[in-house]
Amino acid sequence: MTNILGTTMVTQVGIIVRDIEARARAWADVLGVEMPPIHTTDSVDVAQTEYNGQPTIARARQTFFHLGQVDLELLEPLDAPSTWDDQLSGHGDSLHHIAFKIAGMQEKLAYLDAKGIPLIQRGEYTGGRYAYVDGTTQLGTILELLESD
Amino acid sequence: MTNILGTTMVTQVGIIVRDIEARARAWADVLGVEMPPIHTTDSVDVAQTEYNGQPTIARARQTFFHLGQVDLELLEPLDAPSTWDDQLSGHGDSLHHIAFKIAGMQEKLAYLDAKGIPLIQRGEYTGGRYAYVDGTTQLGTILELLESD
Repeated sequence: MTNILGTTMVTQVGIIVRDIEARARAWADVLGVEMPPIHTTDSVDVAQTEYNGQPTIARARQTFFHLGQVDLELLEPLDAPSTWDDQLSGHGDSLHHIAFKIAGMQEKLAYLDAKGIPLIQRGEYTGGRYAYVDGTTQLGTILELLESD
Repeated sequence: MTNILGTTMVTQVGIIVRDIEARARAWADVLGVEMPPIHTTDSVDVAQTEYNGQPTIARARQTFFHLGQVDLELLEPLDAPSTWDDQLSGHGDSLHHIAFKIAGMQEKLAYLDAKGIPLIQRGEYTGGRYAYVDGTTQLGTILELLESD
């Protein structure tokens, strides 16, 4: 049996929220930790953000809580179209994805596509790139693949 | 600052699915692992299952994939009412909760309730008990608390 992802270690869980300051403050309160910094993802010219194969101006404000092996990511969608905005529009504040660190992005995406798990959004960030694949039909959730340079 | 949960380690991510055999098979295929066994949660007389403070006959079929620190749990709702059935009815196959192992269930539930994160469902299983709290408004997701005997 082949592990398509090359790993079984979940490294991140992502939550889409309408108000990232309020939700981050509540998480910090419950966990008893400092309020983490909130960043905005790069603009499309830098991130080369693509949604359903087309460039998109959509961005997100994001922050992270480090919970052992897993980072909890909060994402507040900015503009559209994006998988982040789709989730907020369709389901309100809610869990969005679980992420795996992978190597060989193109190969992984091709394998997953052949399994009925298509690419929906991708982009670059300093030090690497991400891709969301729509595993809702096959796996019950969106996955994020994270590849470092 | 006090950590209300007493831990910051996420130990489980739960996905609600309509067809647990098909979704478990797809996960096993993607991860390159054996198909795990599927169990059914105990009936209400054993599990003492309560939903919104009232006994409920609802159960779930469940299976687990061990992904490092985190167990990935698939849950197929049986009967109603339950938070599992609410999720499937409202959102289809989707991520449902993230779980933490805690000690002192009653105290934790009281703290969370005071923060606007109320209990929605609880039950017993061999070796421990679980409680789901509705953190959707405050945290963007349902949490599960797991307490071992």
